[in-house]
Amino acid sequence: MSKDAQLDGMLAELDRGHDAALQRLLEFLRIPSVSTDPAHRGDVRRAAEWLCDQLQQLGFQAQIRDTPGHPMVVAHSQKGDARPVLFYGHYDVQPVDPLELWDRPPFEPEIQQTPEGAVIRGRGASDDKGQLMTFIEAFRAWKAVHGELPSDLTLLFEGEEESGSPSLRPFLHENAAELRASLAMICDTGLYADGRPAITTQLRGLVGEEVIIRGADRDLHSGSFGGLAANPVMVLAQALGALKDGTGRVTLPGFYDGVTDLPPELRRDWQALGFDAGDFLGRVGLSEPIGEKGRMPLDMVWNQPTAEINGIVGGYAGEGFKTVLPAEARAKVSFRLTGSQDPEKIRDAFRDHIRRFLPADCTVEFTNHGGSPASVMDISDPAFASARAALSEEWGREAAFIGAGGSIPVAGDFKEILGMDSMLIGFGRDDDRIHSPNEKYNLESFTKGARSWVRILATLR
Amino acid sequence: MSKDAQLDGMLAELDRGHDAALQRLLEFLRIPSVSTDPAHRGDVRRAAEWLCDQLQQLGFQAQIRDTPGHPMVVAHSQKGDARPVLFYGHYDVQPVDPLELWDRPPFEPEIQQTPEGAVIRGRGASDDKGQLMTFIEAFRAWKAVHGELPSDLTLLFEGEEESGSPSLRPFLHENAAELRASLAMICDTGLYADGRPAITTQLRGLVGEEVIIRGADRDLHSGSFGGLAANPVMVLAQALGALKDGTGRVTLPGFYDGVTDLPPELRRDWQALGFDAGDFLGRVGLSEPIGEKGRMPLDMVWNQPTAEINGIVGGYAGEGFKTVLPAEARAKVSFRLTGSQDPEKIRDAFRDHIRRFLPADCTVEFTNHGGSPASVMDISDPAFASARAALSEEWGREAAFIGAGGSIPVAGDFKEILGMDSMLIGFGRDDDRIHSPNEKYNLESFTKGARSWVRILATLR
Repeated sequence: MSKDAQLDGMLAELDRGHDAALQRLLEFLRIPSVSTDPAHRGDVRRAAEWLCDQLQQLGFQAQIRDTPGHPMVVAHSQKGDARPVLFYGHYDVQPVDPLELWDRPPFEPEIQQTPEGAVIRGRGASDDKGQLMTFIEAFRAWKAVHGELPSDLTLLFEGEEESGSPSLRPFLHENAAELRASLAMICDTGLYADGRPAITTQLRGLVGEEVIIRGADRDLHSGSFGGLAANPVMVLAQALGALKDGTGRVTLPGFYDGVTDLPPELRRDWQALGFDAGDFLGRVGLSEPIGEKGRMPLDMVWNQPTAEINGIVGGYAGEGFKTVLPAEARAKVSFRLTGSQDPEKIRDAFRDHIRRFLPADCTVEFTNHGGSPASVMDISDPAFASARAALSEEWGREAAFIGAGGSIPVAGDFKEILGMDSMLIGFGRDDDRIHSPNEKYNLESFTKGARSWVRILATLR
Repeated sequence: MSKDAQLDGMLAELDRGHDAALQRLLEFLRIPSVSTDPAHRGDVRRAAEWLCDQLQQLGFQAQIRDTPGHPMVVAHSQKGDARPVLFYGHYDVQPVDPLELWDRPPFEPEIQQTPEGAVIRGRGASDDKGQLMTFIEAFRAWKAVHGELPSDLTLLFEGEEESGSPSLRPFLHENAAELRASLAMICDTGLYADGRPAITTQLRGLVGEEVIIRGADRDLHSGSFGGLAANPVMVLAQALGALKDGTGRVTLPGFYDGVTDLPPELRRDWQALGFDAGDFLGRVGLSEPIGEKGRMPLDMVWNQPTAEINGIVGGYAGEGFKTVLPAEARAKVSFRLTGSQDPEKIRDAFRDHIRRFLPADCTVEFTNHGGSPASVMDISDPAFASARAALSEEWGREAAFIGAGGSIPVAGDFKEILGMDSMLIGFGRDDDRIHSPNEKYNLESFTKGARSWVRILATLR
């Protein structure tokens, strides 16, 4: 059988098996594998076991590999003489709160018909279980046509991506010889906004920090103590508020070290995408880009670093009013990094900044919630051009090289620890509500995603 | 019987009936009359009914008087020709959270032996049920000795003091003829720090505001939107942080209009109190007064205005980390006022301040949680001197004229609406943990409080 006939056979096989593939994904989505919540520890393991079982049934040598946190699932296909390729995804999902904003239980997924087509609704549908399953359905189709799996594949699925991947780097170090390949395929990104297929060639890094400021050993009456005693919420508001100046620039000393201007060729490509910031923000009820005036909006979100408060809590926030002077205040803060910004230098600068605001009789506690530098891929590898062509063929329009504002630290870890570049190809959409209530994944993304992978596999094997 | 013999008889009667009085207070404390929480609406009414029943049994003409909020309890003794006096207290209590910091259920009060003597532990023990009951036990002793209640008394007990007293002013207006007296007795303040009896002659006012800033119509992924979309928590932190400058002064335009320096005679009296700020703060785990350098600490807390954040919440504050860009942020903010600061001008200045920080595509919602000016009593009324003497006699040490940092807006309302001054006499202590977990009232305060009132009543009747 010619390679073309084999490819046609695999695409036909995917179309035939569509309903069964969808049932497998729904089963996977029903496992509430929230990695940040200790209450879901058993569920996370259950998701790993489900996945391992699927891979073993397909003929992979698959194993659950324990870590100090949640387990890894590692699988290998048979040996051959092809270019070794690693496939990566994550089987853990984001927390679901605020639960009351979900239209349905987040772990009871269903197919819904919407004006924009059918979607798979549920936590993890897009981030990242639905994407991860596009790999597996592609491998399944390959085996149906070829009688065996594509050779020299390694699969690595982690269960801690949404909680900062604390076990990933040690695991890569300890298993470097087993996991090293010449290229990694990561399916955790999206189509470009208008549905155009895309390969993400640069990603922002991330620094996550939690800060707790403590004052008195109890909540105080603001009448008896106000004006005399330190207020940790006021201290925190002043310190966090001063992270950005009036123009929105981050004020930490040295913060912009390593941030580079967008290369002219990528600037041209990104301008050609016709990104409409007003429309993008309008879909979530906003209208005004907050970055520096005159800067291209895609530059703000893909190539500029930022500081965000992800959560804050302190004092009385219930019904009515309580005139307390709170004993403590907490915040979760993250920085998105670009270029060669150093996560640990930025973490240190943040902690120094907070300490400068701290009264002598208050204390501060920091928790490191992970950090990773930005990633910039080398697109001179010919696999990028062939993958771009395969994607363009499947989707019927030219695939784009784009950036991403989110962090996929694993790409940086693969480069640093295993010495390999990554191709970031995914099928999510901007309106997938990942990390928010009512997450969904378009059925088209799932279907064409698997078809895309058999096309890309065909260029590599 | 001579007046002296009658007084001795009443004091002996109080000592004899001590255990029964204590049981009545514990019964009262078991009613969870949290006025700020709609879930406790029925409990608040039950507390009013319990009180009304007690007063009727004593021979008062007592009634539950409905309002749009929680009811008032109003009672009158028989007519006579004495100077009419109004007694005021409140039967509602503060919320109890954080509940996990209580050593015992807040509404299961008990007597505990401590190194500093016996205390009544439970929510409302000091603020204000225990204090209010010192009145009632004094009236009971009076009746036992005289065969009838003291004449020309009006009692007014409200159930909304901890939620800003929304019904009080309308009620005073509507019932002015019935409630007007020549002097009000308010039992909602404390002994001076070292246990010295005291009459509070000035109180700070209060402005309460809640602010909600809303941005996107959902929580956003900070990777996809960070740097481009407004972050309501950051906006709120910047706005609230800018409420105070580096020296701790409030930055709102016109905020200090009406704030006056402490009169030299009160400054001398307050200095003579020997207030030790380090010790006062040390008892709650702090050490440094945050006010202006060189200012007397009692001036900071009794005669200077302040701004406090009482509570803040926004975004993800649960276990782990969630890189959201939150859809909204909320805070409760209060200002303590002195001199003739105008609560409504300060509310307006606060709202204008917040709006100046608001991005064009965010919205802000304010909730008015009440306001009242500071109160300064006219101590030339001879009743102040005779009450001071009565207190000095009961407690065995010279009673002091002091200030208070907390607000008792009712004193200002009595002056404005009913044209009468108030005497603020109470028996709470600084370590009573009012508004905090593990509130208590010293048994001595309860006992000597009732004895103090029969002495003061004896100077007035």
